[in-house]
Amino acid sequence: MPETHRPVNLGAEQWLEKPIECLDHGFVRLVDYMGDDSAIVQAARVSYGKGTKKANEDRGLIRYLLRHRHTTPFEMCELKFHCKMPIFVARQWIRHRTANVNEYSARYSVLDREFYLPEALALKKQSMENRQGRAEELTPEEQAKILTLMKSGNEAQYRDYEEFLRIGLARELARIGISVSAYTQWYWKIDLHNLLHFLSLRMDEHAQWEIRVFAEAMAKIVKDAFPLVWEAFEDYRLNSMSLSRVEVEILSEVGLVTSRFMDNDALRKYLNEKIGNKREVEEFLKKFKTLNIQLG
Amino acid sequence: MPETHRPVNLGAEQWLEKPIECLDHGFVRLVDYMGDDSAIVQAARVSYGKGTKKANEDRGLIRYLLRHRHTTPFEMCELKFHCKMPIFVARQWIRHRTANVNEYSARYSVLDREFYLPEALALKKQSMENRQGRAEELTPEEQAKILTLMKSGNEAQYRDYEEFLRIGLARELARIGISVSAYTQWYWKIDLHNLLHFLSLRMDEHAQWEIRVFAEAMAKIVKDAFPLVWEAFEDYRLNSMSLSRVEVEILSEVGLVTSRFMDNDALRKYLNEKIGNKREVEEFLKKFKTLNIQLG
Amino acid sequence: MPETHRPVNLGAEQWLEKPIECLDHGFVRLVDYMGDDSAIVQAARVSYGKGTKKANEDRGLIRYLLRHRHTTPFEMCELKFHCKMPIFVARQWIRHRTANVNEYSARYSVLDREFYLPEALALKKQSMENRQGRAEELTPEEQAKILTLMKSGNEAQYRDYEEFLRIGLARELARIGISVSAYTQWYWKIDLHNLLHFLSLRMDEHAQWEIRVFAEAMAKIVKDAFPLVWEAFEDYRLNSMSLSRVEVEILSEVGLVTSRFMDNDALRKYLNEKIGNKREVEEFLKKFKTLNIQLG
Amino acid sequence: MPETHRPVNLGAEQWLEKPIECLDHGFVRLVDYMGDDSAIVQAARVSYGKGTKKANEDRGLIRYLLRHRHTTPFEMCELKFHCKMPIFVARQWIRHRTANVNEYSARYSVLDREFYLPEALALKKQSMENRQGRAEELTPEEQAKILTLMKSGNEAQYRDYEEFLRIGLARELARIGISVSAYTQWYWKIDLHNLLHFLSLRMDEHAQWEIRVFAEAMAKIVKDAFPLVWEAFEDYRLNSMSLSRVEVEILSEVGLVTSRFMDNDALRKYLNEKIGNKREVEEFLKKFKTLNIQLG
Repeated sequence: MPETHRPVNLGAEQWLEKPIECLDHGFVRLVDYMGDDSAIVQAARVSYGKGTKKANEDRGLIRYLLRHRHTTPFEMCELKFHCKMPIFVARQWIRHRTANVNEYSARYSVLDREFYLPEALALKKQSMENRQGRAEELTPEEQAKILTLMKSGNEAQYRDYEEFLRIGLARELARIGISVSAYTQWYWKIDLHNLLHFLSLRMDEHAQWEIRVFAEAMAKIVKDAFPLVWEAFEDYRLNSMSLSRVEVEILSEVGLVTSRFMDNDALRKYLNEKIGNKREVEEFLKKFKTLNIQLG
Repeated sequence: MPETHRPVNLGAEQWLEKPIECLDHGFVRLVDYMGDDSAIVQAARVSYGKGTKKANEDRGLIRYLLRHRHTTPFEMCELKFHCKMPIFVARQWIRHRTANVNEYSARYSVLDREFYLPEALALKKQSMENRQGRAEELTPEEQAKILTLMKSGNEAQYRDYEEFLRIGLARELARIGISVSAYTQWYWKIDLHNLLHFLSLRMDEHAQWEIRVFAEAMAKIVKDAFPLVWEAFEDYRLNSMSLSRVEVEILSEVGLVTSRFMDNDALRKYLNEKIGNKREVEEFLKKFKTLNIQLG
Repeated sequence: MPETHRPVNLGAEQWLEKPIECLDHGFVRLVDYMGDDSAIVQAARVSYGKGTKKANEDRGLIRYLLRHRHTTPFEMCELKFHCKMPIFVARQWIRHRTANVNEYSARYSVLDREFYLPEALALKKQSMENRQGRAEELTPEEQAKILTLMKSGNEAQYRDYEEFLRIGLARELARIGISVSAYTQWYWKIDLHNLLHFLSLRMDEHAQWEIRVFAEAMAKIVKDAFPLVWEAFEDYRLNSMSLSRVEVEILSEVGLVTSRFMDNDALRKYLNEKIGNKREVEEFLKKFKTLNIQLG
Repeated sequence: MPETHRPVNLGAEQWLEKPIECLDHGFVRLVDYMGDDSAIVQAARVSYGKGTKKANEDRGLIRYLLRHRHTTPFEMCELKFHCKMPIFVARQWIRHRTANVNEYSARYSVLDREFYLPEALALKKQSMENRQGRAEELTPEEQAKILTLMKSGNEAQYRDYEEFLRIGLARELARIGISVSAYTQWYWKIDLHNLLHFLSLRMDEHAQWEIRVFAEAMAKIVKDAFPLVWEAFEDYRLNSMSLSRVEVEILSEVGLVTSRFMDNDALRKYLNEKIGNKREVEEFLKKFKTLNIQLG
């Protein structure tokens, strides 16, 4: 195995060239990476200077950066993936503009006979509340009918495609009858800050299920490669709650009282245990006060 | 006054060519704009289709978009400013990369004798808690001493600069002894989404006071030009509260009870009054449940 | 017609809301704009200072900026289009990342029954030299066969789509069998510098013919809206020639002699007539010398 | 030395942590990298498919990509630098927006007493033709006078700065009298395509000499790390010549005749020797014809 003077990220190394299967023919494969948790700390310390240099403060600094949206140090890491996905997934994915992409071109090369065919259980009804979502399952008969039509549709499309190529039609025209369920592939490179943004949008329940599968595959890799960042990302993004101005106002007006704690000291002790970080305890107490919560 | 087939934004029109003074020699001046609240709605409706077309739903749609971080429709509006600010402010400002900039060049042109000299009351002590901030005021004697030194420093710098030019030294070298308190100016164009992001960072209490002055001047213009967007921005960004995973957990564990309401119906009635929008009431009730709040 | 204090671009005004048809169901329509030729000059003069203020120098300045790739002043203008195009065209178009986009979503709304069906003459053979291009025409029989298959393919796809919707399948799944020849639409906003870059790539003979149709429609509008920029763009980009290091070397080695001119004075006179601009004449004479051309 | 599964770039490895000194106190230091020449080829082949897979075609493919401005494969490589430079250099540098930056903050940390003091020979007169440039040298007396003033100016600035800090003034205000010749530093990460663009602008003779020093230091590293890319970059960018539409017209009108070659066969033979690549020979012959050059 070749040697390098670069920082080596063992969590990332184990994923190199180990594709994660996604849907029926797709995958996500880590091809290369730059950086690790400490690369973020290193970059941040150029800005924030010498007072923060103790090694045991890395976790605290990363959490501080992510909590306060100091995003530039996270841009100091890069991940490069090779991915294969249906065209309709690629069309949602490509909307994230701060990434580098090289996609398979059906003008240059012949498309493979690979179409995404959902599993029966994935075939769900149109949601009524959520205009962009799915709801409950269809009946087995409905599922069967749909899958049969989809399969024969794909076959017909590819048969025509082959016929067009046989006749000699230019590839760039022969492919226009191929549907958005056909697979494409690309190299996709992105910095960690923008990848986290991508994940927060594409792991969300409002994202189409098929792209969430790919987002979750990448999340797995990020979690191993940047454990401190991932922990902070879960705490301050994925599992955080945002209250609007009026929601804060409502909560402060309904007269919230705790039924569990007796006094300030007990509260502080509890907070120190739960939160740990001093500054964050202070930040929380400010919110507690804003929400006008009384100790019961 | 010339006529146009473009949408005209009356809130923006009144600011055109009307500079807002900032600090001692600076300003922010709206030079041109594209779009208004309804341009955002128009763009969103291309995506979200025909079911949302009633005119009285514009406010609701804008609030929905901003709340759920559907940011692309806000990119459909542009604002172009002419600004003049001290170099140290410009250096913080330029870090926002998604903007278009043409700055005055001291290689091409001679710098004016204009330096930022803070008002005495702006001269504050280094904050101890906040490593990047200021705290309480200095004594009048300290203020006076500092201002005297600053003034004579600026004069000395400009005297040397003039001497360098007199000798014939290239402008690009003559200017290197000029301090970051000297004023520069630029044309700065940005889309509304990125401007809001800029404002949320630069109106923040952690931003240096001098750049906040400029951010607030632009906020004034945005407020008049995009009233619905501004209202949503205040409700869901500026005055929102974010609770981390552990903070949500703590609040759900301390056994919160309302001391004001009796039953679910009264709560719902109150929420409908305060929030108005149905979907948002449902979103709030979910948070209420997550926070494990009991009705008292 | 409403009035505005903004600069009004008469060349652009005439295109507002006047769609240009592209292919069989598509269009390009200018929705809004910011700026004109003189907005570029205005921004450039912030950088380049007071020595360049004569009005008759606008053309020269724009040409200088474009020739020397001083691109930022061109970013001070924006164009917003409403466009409708086949999905395969949209997929090439979206690769230009420095634009703002809101696309029709087939998750929210039902797709129209609109597919791109090429004209018979557009159906050409795969080029052998150019792996991404087309060559000569097919026979009328081949054309007819292809068009018949394409038409029935589209019909079958849309019939299945309607059947899926009738069964109640979620729209986001029902549409996955629809091909990339189906039409989509979007609002697309871009600054002038990046639009010129887009045009230089997408008007090129290597671009797929179908996207060139859209690029040429936009070029028409740019030409009317920014006549001085367009002239410079044609002279220094579209119709320029780039010689590599070795090509320069070859030309300088083959001993080029002019067969037309007698002396330096005649050459200079000719250059002044053809080029006009002094600085550009000097730039040309330098190239003339590098190419080692002798006067015959 | 740690091992890695990633591709290792030996040309880059040798520069890791080996700073290149720039000006009197500055440097450029490669901190990390991703990719090598073959990473570009690998990404391009996803797009251009299987017909291009022979290893000896790597050089040809890279040259083709760069010549035809297929820029995305070059974005697949990243370089991360630690740099230290005067503020006025940093202000020009930061204008390149497609990079990631973490800069030393004088709000958080105290500035070092380090100012750029030009060498006597670098002190030149204002150029008269080039409004942003320098021309001939000043006299030794003028040089000495300027350097004396610069040195004492820097000392006075730093003395005031220390006095402000001693009084207790917030760091963010204490530093505003420090000039743009003071050194700052940052981590700067950029992909190879955008770095080449940076280099083509900042190695140019129109760039200020002080930033060219930094560009040339990075060029040295790029040359070793991406030898095939660098060769192509020199041939098709740095040492290429662009002819405008009217320049092409002029050359085609002056009746160029070669004085060296006899016939087409000799020309072709010569071109094959000089250029090698078949496709490029054809491209050249087209230009030859456009320029209307006759064989003598």
